[in-house]
Amino acid sequence: MCHAVSSAPEGRIEVRTSVGSYPVRIGRGSLAELPKLLARHCPAHAYALIADAGVWGLHGARVRAVCSGLDQPLTIHTFKPGEQSKNRTEWSRLTDSLLATGLGRDGCVIALGGGVAGDLAGFVAATYMRGIPVVQVPTSLVAMVDASVGGKTGVDVAAGKNLVGAFHPPRFVLADPDLSVTLPRRERSQGLAEAIKHGAILDPAYFGWIERRAEDLLGGDPHATGALVMRSVELKAHVVGEDEREAGMRQILNFGHTLGHALEAESEFRLPHGSAVAIGMVLEAQLGERLGVTERGISGRIAEVLDRAELPTRAPGRPDPETVLKLLSRDKKARSGISRYVLLARIGRVDRRHGWSWELTRPIIEEFLASVFPGPA
Amino acid sequence: MCHAVSSAPEGRIEVRTSVGSYPVRIGRGSLAELPKLLARHCPAHAYALIADAGVWGLHGARVRAVCSGLDQPLTIHTFKPGEQSKNRTEWSRLTDSLLATGLGRDGCVIALGGGVAGDLAGFVAATYMRGIPVVQVPTSLVAMVDASVGGKTGVDVAAGKNLVGAFHPPRFVLADPDLSVTLPRRERSQGLAEAIKHGAILDPAYFGWIERRAEDLLGGDPHATGALVMRSVELKAHVVGEDEREAGMRQILNFGHTLGHALEAESEFRLPHGSAVAIGMVLEAQLGERLGVTERGISGRIAEVLDRAELPTRAPGRPDPETVLKLLSRDKKARSGISRYVLLARIGRVDRRHGWSWELTRPIIEEFLASVFPGPA
Repeated sequence: MCHAVSSAPEGRIEVRTSVGSYPVRIGRGSLAELPKLLARHCPAHAYALIADAGVWGLHGARVRAVCSGLDQPLTIHTFKPGEQSKNRTEWSRLTDSLLATGLGRDGCVIALGGGVAGDLAGFVAATYMRGIPVVQVPTSLVAMVDASVGGKTGVDVAAGKNLVGAFHPPRFVLADPDLSVTLPRRERSQGLAEAIKHGAILDPAYFGWIERRAEDLLGGDPHATGALVMRSVELKAHVVGEDEREAGMRQILNFGHTLGHALEAESEFRLPHGSAVAIGMVLEAQLGERLGVTERGISGRIAEVLDRAELPTRAPGRPDPETVLKLLSRDKKARSGISRYVLLARIGRVDRRHGWSWELTRPIIEEFLASVFPGPA
Repeated sequence: MCHAVSSAPEGRIEVRTSVGSYPVRIGRGSLAELPKLLARHCPAHAYALIADAGVWGLHGARVRAVCSGLDQPLTIHTFKPGEQSKNRTEWSRLTDSLLATGLGRDGCVIALGGGVAGDLAGFVAATYMRGIPVVQVPTSLVAMVDASVGGKTGVDVAAGKNLVGAFHPPRFVLADPDLSVTLPRRERSQGLAEAIKHGAILDPAYFGWIERRAEDLLGGDPHATGALVMRSVELKAHVVGEDEREAGMRQILNFGHTLGHALEAESEFRLPHGSAVAIGMVLEAQLGERLGVTERGISGRIAEVLDRAELPTRAPGRPDPETVLKLLSRDKKARSGISRYVLLARIGRVDRRHGWSWELTRPIIEEFLASVFPGPA
């Protein structure tokens, strides 16, 4: 997986699943192809579009115009923007909204928006009449490079994020970088965290390319953005194609996520996901260095690239090690309450000596956390 | 599929799925094999048993004693008996109850009870951390002969029954006819409706056998009950093995269900499911006869067998044809709002001239309903 970065800012990538495959279409202006792609990959009696209300405000008119080319009825169902909408109440409300329009098993859901729209609408589709097709039309950078590919859907509950959900691969993904031009710089920066992770675990050339093009990417250069989406989706498609259900290789996508998720929860979700993953990657690289698994200097190298992408490299405030430990033991990835860590060998390569991830016992993590979060003086 | 009825009251039947297969173990006293079957087919770090509180009251002590042979922790989560528990609120509550015990992705759900327990606990498992394994331990006759096999899970919503759910095949099904000995005669009768359906669509010998053994089956004869469960599961396993997702052959299991479901809903669920299916089978056979699809006399033959099984053959009261028509157009099986009907050629054989089911337009059904439900004088 260590190819040179494709210079192509558009194209089509096929993602393998346990039951077939689906295409990811990437390209500027590709939104116009939505009716054609629906007809080819997801013929249905009716379509229900579920969108973040903010995104619908920005792109609704364009989407409506494009969809006037559809022969089937289309209904629109919006929800309030933000992670706080990703819950069972909103899932129920949207499901009932689709039922009220009479959408049948021969219907199809279109998810339009960022990661929340993809997860929430995907879970509505996964559970609507025991599952109807969904197509993903990501509009945020993080959804384009990461969340829309791989079939994970779900909602958050009080006990934690994404604890209720389903694997429900889309029929296709349509990523039009032009939809991301309206994103604020800060949101682009958030999207780069997962792309940097893809480079860190699989592709050193891509990792270096993001560093060199960081300013263009933050500025919304459409050519650079297209190339970023292409390469990240190629890398992610390879991983989820090998291991859809995270029994093996897919675990490597959790690099930075074990400590990242715990810090995100510890901050009561004031720390955005991309920032949490950024800090998590630095910490997990430091952890790997300390254990002699990761080459020395890698955590510093990651911090440099994150810095160029305007992402944080250290946890803000003083996280409480006890709280973090408690959150780690409840992690969805934990087995028998022991949390698991993806450790790099070096940039572009995950250490494989203990499978795809390391089980690290509480004393090891406790000592590590005490050293990085010295706690109140 | 037209074998003689197996005289074996116990055995093991393999159900094929899109991703492998699972066994259904049938036999008196087979509950004792639960720990062994869990270890073999569903090794897990911890088990969460979800049970109908009434069933738990009857069989809890026995299940606890049997499960003392487990090496892993077991937690018990009960819900109030009855279809009214099969909703999203109870699904949320049970999910949170499992989360509170710290059950991880390496856990497994055991569903103990009738059809409601299987559907509800199955849906909890299907959506818990994007899906953990479930095993089905049916205790009612209808769950043993029908509901526990085939992977359908879900809950009811205001708009209709089973409109939210997932396909989530169990790791195994354990049907111990001894668990059904405490059932009242009326509930046994309800369970016979689906078994009679299996005979009507696939196996004339079995259909006749149920008629001859009806008194033993209603009385709870364990040998006859075991043989009934064996043959019904064989027939159902064949069908769902051919077509897990109801794209084709599985539709035949809906015989009696299109009109049956509508009458069940029209009665606001005062009409029990088995009774509704019984009446639905007679009506759909009459409909087939009227259209010249079903041999003359078949509806009468079905009514005779239902009568022996102490099931109704005519809708109670005076169902309102308008309401029934409205409910039919909203049926989950409807395509483009046109409802579909499985029509028999004769006993043991479904008419296949239009695929597995017939699309019948509103005027045809309107006329039929007007003739069978003359409405208020």
